[in-house]
Amino acid sequence: MREYLAQHVEQVRLASGRIREHVRRTPTLTTDLDPNLRLKPECFQVTGSFKPRGAFNAVLSLFEAGERPKGVIAVSSGNHAQAVALAAATVGLPALILIPEDANPAKVAATRALGAEVIQEGITFANREQRLREEMAERGFVLVHPFNDWNVIHGQATAARELLEDEPDLDVIGAPCGGGGLLSGTAISAKSHRAGVKVIGVEPEAADDAYRTWKAGSIQTLPGSPKTLADGVRTTAIGARNFEVMFANRLVDEIVTVTEDEIANAARVAWSRLHLALEPTGALALAAHLSGKLPKGRTGLILSGGNANLQTVATLLGTS
Amino acid sequence: MREYLAQHVEQVRLASGRIREHVRRTPTLTTDLDPNLRLKPECFQVTGSFKPRGAFNAVLSLFEAGERPKGVIAVSSGNHAQAVALAAATVGLPALILIPEDANPAKVAATRALGAEVIQEGITFANREQRLREEMAERGFVLVHPFNDWNVIHGQATAARELLEDEPDLDVIGAPCGGGGLLSGTAISAKSHRAGVKVIGVEPEAADDAYRTWKAGSIQTLPGSPKTLADGVRTTAIGARNFEVMFANRLVDEIVTVTEDEIANAARVAWSRLHLALEPTGALALAAHLSGKLPKGRTGLILSGGNANLQTVATLLGTS
Repeated sequence: MREYLAQHVEQVRLASGRIREHVRRTPTLTTDLDPNLRLKPECFQVTGSFKPRGAFNAVLSLFEAGERPKGVIAVSSGNHAQAVALAAATVGLPALILIPEDANPAKVAATRALGAEVIQEGITFANREQRLREEMAERGFVLVHPFNDWNVIHGQATAARELLEDEPDLDVIGAPCGGGGLLSGTAISAKSHRAGVKVIGVEPEAADDAYRTWKAGSIQTLPGSPKTLADGVRTTAIGARNFEVMFANRLVDEIVTVTEDEIANAARVAWSRLHLALEPTGALALAAHLSGKLPKGRTGLILSGGNANLQTVATLLGTS
Repeated sequence: MREYLAQHVEQVRLASGRIREHVRRTPTLTTDLDPNLRLKPECFQVTGSFKPRGAFNAVLSLFEAGERPKGVIAVSSGNHAQAVALAAATVGLPALILIPEDANPAKVAATRALGAEVIQEGITFANREQRLREEMAERGFVLVHPFNDWNVIHGQATAARELLEDEPDLDVIGAPCGGGGLLSGTAISAKSHRAGVKVIGVEPEAADDAYRTWKAGSIQTLPGSPKTLADGVRTTAIGARNFEVMFANRLVDEIVTVTEDEIANAARVAWSRLHLALEPTGALALAAHLSGKLPKGRTGLILSGGNANLQTVATLLGTS
């Protein structure tokens, strides 16, 4: 166990150095809400979410391995797409991003603006994995998986690493959980900092596959893409590597779920009291804190991003 | 001139130490918008605006002077009210705040929640100075003026002082201007840091008294409270002390004005691209930057606060 953690922590340390000049060291914030609360606002990260931490680590690691791939490829309708596009452009590699047809046009435009080729035509939630394999085979591009990839996990781990550098005495860290990239990285950084730091994953009740996976002890898969305000965590199952870190090695203590009302309320509190323009996914850990679902103590929340659909925000704020 | 500045800078240094344990050292942020831009987001300050810097310095200075006043009094419908209420409660003094009848009920509630007595009945924009004199005479409370007060000016100066500690090479600093408390403090910190730093005040076209004061060389007063989205700068004239710093001693280089459309656009950019939930007043300096009205160079913007009316936010976002 100690060796497992030590080996991953060393990779996180390397990731931290590798990505340093390409990502932002986001600040740690205190609030008027609760003196025990510390926030890691990854909405201020490059591209507006934590995703470039993992994407840059994955893309830069390809080069260190002595490869010069023909390009990189990713499937994403959201923040991972922009992160991979930026990382690829930075090192001068072509990037191909497959984005489902029904994705938010603003995010598609942002991904194209970062220089990536985007294919949307005929891409659906159901066929995207198949299309991905075809494009990889045809072009010889390397996949940057959004969560089931060690380099991505070690990159995402740098957020909690920075938080704990700033606030070494935290008792609890809460982070959202979709595919588990951020949460498994957070767990590595937290448990290597101090075994007693409780690591809590937060997901919407409507997308509770990680909760059920934790309870069952094996990966559980949702029947289809869930409907939730927190559109960044609509993944149907966590990855095998994420499972290994989070549950097989028990580096995550608990998964808690929050309702859609609790997510909406947390987003409103973020906007009105914390003055952070978060996307609903970015407010998941805050939702768990506000609804009393996190353990007591000095608590750090990883607020994953800020790329909100502005119409959704207008509706949420207008009905408060 | 050098002596004038040196004497004020020494007061700012003392203010910085005096208020340290009561206010937050807000971070300096970089953005994806422009590599030359640095932001000082005072929306993350205690109570959601820069105002406690000045209020705490004023209230704590009363005690150092050996006085134990019976209480403090202020007139404000906004952020200064909460700041004075908090500073008074912290040192155990009663606070009386006069708030015009038509003020935002949420801000009135926030001021009461901080322990202040609030009088609203019969208070109007026209009679509030008169009512203030009456209450001061009757109760023997000490006034904390929102801007025309040296302790308040020296307290507000600590925001730019911190920004320049973090970013010593700035060429330009932009700050909003209402009564001139923040802007005159900013000018003291900037010009003492390096004479070549350009200090630019930003106000709405609809409330351009500081602009006209700068042009005329004497204090110009608006005929009535102006109508602008930026409700934090509806003051009709800057104060005599603020005039002295800003224009008589020429520590402010220029006043620029922005239109209501430019303010609305800047607020939307803050929310959607910077992920900062600013109030429109807090977006004034950003509006000047985005519309190309600031000098070129490495630019720091003081974003004064985040206490937005959420209905206004919903409306602005819904019409973007």
